[in-house]
Amino acid sequence: MLRLTFLIALVSLVPFQMAFADSAVPFQHSLSSAANSHSDASWRTSSNEVKTDCPHKWSIEKKTLHGGKQEGVETITIDNGVIRIVLCPTRGMGILHVTKGDLQLKWDSPIKEVVNPQYVNLDSRGGLGWLEGFNEFMCRCGLESNGHPGTDKFINNVGDEAEMDLTLHGKIANIPASSVDVVVDRTAPYAIHIKGQVNEKLLFGPKLELHTELVVIPGESSFQLVDEIKNVGAQEQEFEILYHANFGSPLLEAGAKVVAPVKSVKPFNDRAAEGLNTWNVYDAPTTGFVEQVYLLELAGDDSNHTTALLHNKAGDKGATISWSLAELPHLTVWKNTGALNDGYVTGIEPGTNYPNNRSVERAAGRVPKLQPGASHQMTLKFGLHTGIDEVGAALKSIGMIEFEGKAIDGNATRVESLQQ
Amino acid sequence: MLRLTFLIALVSLVPFQMAFADSAVPFQHSLSSAANSHSDASWRTSSNEVKTDCPHKWSIEKKTLHGGKQEGVETITIDNGVIRIVLCPTRGMGILHVTKGDLQLKWDSPIKEVVNPQYVNLDSRGGLGWLEGFNEFMCRCGLESNGHPGTDKFINNVGDEAEMDLTLHGKIANIPASSVDVVVDRTAPYAIHIKGQVNEKLLFGPKLELHTELVVIPGESSFQLVDEIKNVGAQEQEFEILYHANFGSPLLEAGAKVVAPVKSVKPFNDRAAEGLNTWNVYDAPTTGFVEQVYLLELAGDDSNHTTALLHNKAGDKGATISWSLAELPHLTVWKNTGALNDGYVTGIEPGTNYPNNRSVERAAGRVPKLQPGASHQMTLKFGLHTGIDEVGAALKSIGMIEFEGKAIDGNATRVESLQQ
Amino acid sequence: MLRLTFLIALVSLVPFQMAFADSAVPFQHSLSSAANSHSDASWRTSSNEVKTDCPHKWSIEKKTLHGGKQEGVETITIDNGVIRIVLCPTRGMGILHVTKGDLQLKWDSPIKEVVNPQYVNLDSRGGLGWLEGFNEFMCRCGLESNGHPGTDKFINNVGDEAEMDLTLHGKIANIPASSVDVVVDRTAPYAIHIKGQVNEKLLFGPKLELHTELVVIPGESSFQLVDEIKNVGAQEQEFEILYHANFGSPLLEAGAKVVAPVKSVKPFNDRAAEGLNTWNVYDAPTTGFVEQVYLLELAGDDSNHTTALLHNKAGDKGATISWSLAELPHLTVWKNTGALNDGYVTGIEPGTNYPNNRSVERAAGRVPKLQPGASHQMTLKFGLHTGIDEVGAALKSIGMIEFEGKAIDGNATRVESLQQ
Repeated sequence: MLRLTFLIALVSLVPFQMAFADSAVPFQHSLSSAANSHSDASWRTSSNEVKTDCPHKWSIEKKTLHGGKQEGVETITIDNGVIRIVLCPTRGMGILHVTKGDLQLKWDSPIKEVVNPQYVNLDSRGGLGWLEGFNEFMCRCGLESNGHPGTDKFINNVGDEAEMDLTLHGKIANIPASSVDVVVDRTAPYAIHIKGQVNEKLLFGPKLELHTELVVIPGESSFQLVDEIKNVGAQEQEFEILYHANFGSPLLEAGAKVVAPVKSVKPFNDRAAEGLNTWNVYDAPTTGFVEQVYLLELAGDDSNHTTALLHNKAGDKGATISWSLAELPHLTVWKNTGALNDGYVTGIEPGTNYPNNRSVERAAGRVPKLQPGASHQMTLKFGLHTGIDEVGAALKSIGMIEFEGKAIDGNATRVESLQQ
Repeated sequence: MLRLTFLIALVSLVPFQMAFADSAVPFQHSLSSAANSHSDASWRTSSNEVKTDCPHKWSIEKKTLHGGKQEGVETITIDNGVIRIVLCPTRGMGILHVTKGDLQLKWDSPIKEVVNPQYVNLDSRGGLGWLEGFNEFMCRCGLESNGHPGTDKFINNVGDEAEMDLTLHGKIANIPASSVDVVVDRTAPYAIHIKGQVNEKLLFGPKLELHTELVVIPGESSFQLVDEIKNVGAQEQEFEILYHANFGSPLLEAGAKVVAPVKSVKPFNDRAAEGLNTWNVYDAPTTGFVEQVYLLELAGDDSNHTTALLHNKAGDKGATISWSLAELPHLTVWKNTGALNDGYVTGIEPGTNYPNNRSVERAAGRVPKLQPGASHQMTLKFGLHTGIDEVGAALKSIGMIEFEGKAIDGNATRVESLQQ
Repeated sequence: MLRLTFLIALVSLVPFQMAFADSAVPFQHSLSSAANSHSDASWRTSSNEVKTDCPHKWSIEKKTLHGGKQEGVETITIDNGVIRIVLCPTRGMGILHVTKGDLQLKWDSPIKEVVNPQYVNLDSRGGLGWLEGFNEFMCRCGLESNGHPGTDKFINNVGDEAEMDLTLHGKIANIPASSVDVVVDRTAPYAIHIKGQVNEKLLFGPKLELHTELVVIPGESSFQLVDEIKNVGAQEQEFEILYHANFGSPLLEAGAKVVAPVKSVKPFNDRAAEGLNTWNVYDAPTTGFVEQVYLLELAGDDSNHTTALLHNKAGDKGATISWSLAELPHLTVWKNTGALNDGYVTGIEPGTNYPNNRSVERAAGRVPKLQPGASHQMTLKFGLHTGIDEVGAALKSIGMIEFEGKAIDGNATRVESLQQ
């Protein structure tokens, strides 16, 4: 360990010797650091510059966007030879979209620009201002709170219990990262790591840090988020996090299905109850469709991991999210299959909680607390599956997750029967 | 058409051949485009570079402003040899001021900087935050709503009727344009076009686009706005727009008058009623003057076009706004003749509605709706008149607009008598 | 005077002749000016470039910060050979921190970045949004209002008394300066002046200008703020200002004391009353400590000037603030000695008022008004004292301030006895 640290120091001092660096020392570059008052406006590296024995071509590119509400927004594009991921440090390290050939993880929001949080007022529209920047494939909701806007109690500066209006889905998706680092391993499997820190800290408020790491292996059609939420304050602190993963075309279409080892499914409200029997099957874009939200409990495998799959009608395109139920015990499925122009979309959203107002979630015992110095870790693996065989393998792996001693095979009928 | 498109493509591919381009092909330049992640920090062209047979000198210049709250604000100055117009893409394509010799269309707001919307919180000051950036000659108010702040109903994400606090005059003046293009015709009258698109779109909200085009003919002392509001959503959408044209010195002074073919004039409130008999004549700056607002219906000519004129006391300086009553049926006159240091100003404001809260306007049937894909077009012509003759001609043209078979000659008495 | 103006003009026209300039003409440089659409992204000068007979080395450096929420924030560092002061024009000309050897005037806020006001929504968190950028050594609170958030009356655009929600400590600390100028005298004592203007002006609102001047003498371990608040509106205008000077380690520690010629001390609330007997002595960081606020009246010397001192336990490190009670009649002491990670801090806060909501302060007669064109001046001297002797001298100077004919010697017992 000491030797490694020494070598890292050495490498950073003599970068021109990088090409000869010990293969145990990963390539490292700071894309931005508030502590060092530094941010690259643009930057690029690739397998052509960082020489390893990696058999796959890859590249990492940072850009600064211009025009309209996206002036000054920073993006990082990671291409691992098979998939291309676009991250947005300016928007809380969210993922704008992911591409594998003609499979894309994304949706067509009415908002086409990547909106700089400087233009977002979370309090506007009765606490729905978050929607004015919402167009990511995946954004985090939290950390002090997420879910519906509305009044909740908090402790104010004079130590009294006071009330504040929470805003939809909290702040983290509209906070720029304080530091972003690139690390590329020089040993197999030559993983690319994009590390970011996003702070939600203030006097008389939470002192929470999100430490996120995107891990991408060259040549693979999947990627991981390895996240940690840390309470750096001296007092116990509530937190909420929900990974708002959003899918439109080509995965979402009439006949698309979500498949998961469902122990129970509960409609969010009367509107959702109307569609309970077909909760996991999607309709074509329907003008005026009012959202339906389902609150799920999933089964986990022996290590309490689970997987949710969204696949298109033909079953030849799919995406999976896999995670630990110990880390993110609740799953929300958001069906919002309105017209294409209005934002045809579904959300598959693992979380510490459901997206009710925090006051409701607290009463239900779903708002966890972090002791001083404590952390909550979460690892999510996103898989992109193309072709009947890959989607079939994903379905089979979900089927191997047993619940009450019985295999859950991803068959929609079986899953639906669990609702009763 | 096909040939034109081909030529445009050709020109953009071989810009160095521009000088020899077909005269049918206009000069074109993209000043900014969020879609292409592009924005010129500064740019200039003029009749020296774009060779035509135009007998007038002209220039177009884009700048980025610095210092204080105007850091990063973009302006475009169009000089057509006679008038100089300064546009602000960052503030919704508003017009900062217009100059023709010693005649200026502008007012002296207490705010001297061109405020970046990043520093404006529309919800602050009880919904009056819009005032913290307000200093344009002409800004648009809308598009989801305009007028007074206050509670109105809307449909929220779960399909329920909910309430939200509307903010003064809506958002459009504080939204940066997503694209700005310059087009200069190579055939007479060699018109300069500045085209901008400003989006007011989000999930669970309006999907409205403003497509605006400023048209300036070299050598003329007038200019046109050719605007279109388009509903790109899949559902019917309410909208409101009001052109908030504001005049201070030198047009506004003791004895200045507003002249228009008035069918009726209604005071906005008791305070305005106090001044009804002199609604169209202005006083000198008066410390502590409380605003008076008048709601007018105008007569139109055979094609339903109308004109409002503001002229100074001597009648040797004037400005007109001409528009179609089919497009903008209502006119608001805002008299706010407080002290010079407090912002001595009057507004001549054609709109789809009066500036009440939207809930009031809806009840009065003055909130139009756009069907999916539908547009509302508006053309406004602004004229700058210097000298008794030019102002007299403008007065005469207003007098030729007949109402109930009688000419309205711009005589203040005649106009006032219409109030009873 | 005329000759001076002429010389200044001459110098600015022929900057290359600066080295030969008349010693009566100060060195001048505009760091930013919204009026001229100018701002230096970075700039530096020092005693090496500006030749005088000053026996001390000094330097002035402007930087633009990058990364996270501090992207685009501007700072100015003044080093006078003995102390180093970091100013922040982007945050209302606040002082980020001051250093003299191992004595630092600063505190460790949970917020580590210098937050661009573009990311601050003062209305959020029930009007406590100001806390999301709060980490300065000294920031001003005001100008329209300061103190606790909550409803207060104001006069709206139609002349009616309306209600608005005031936000914690007002806006001035989150308004970027409209102009910043550097002036360095060429005659003894070779003072460095950093002049800034911050505007809090709008239609239907206050028209207040803060003209601030930081004066630093090379070689001295003190500095002055010479501030002026000017009402440039045409009507009488209320204002409030409070200098929120905040101290953490190394001055604040268990046994640290605040010493001042106290005529009376009043607890802000029941929580503060609990600690009244030890109001001027500090505890070690205490997790969960709820703030205690004390409202003080001080005695002044013959010219009505007063001084407050904070010193560490050993009495070998101290800081003083000296000011005129005619200018800032009230002093608030804020004890917020929570855990280090939660922001262990105390505030010594001279003001025109106490930090109650403005409605409370108005009722108590502590909200002054400025007539049109009138100004309120304030001069504050900050001293950094290292070693027993320097701290002792500061204590002695406070002791020389008499109250009811008796010397107040800075002895804590004496001061406390004044409370009864």
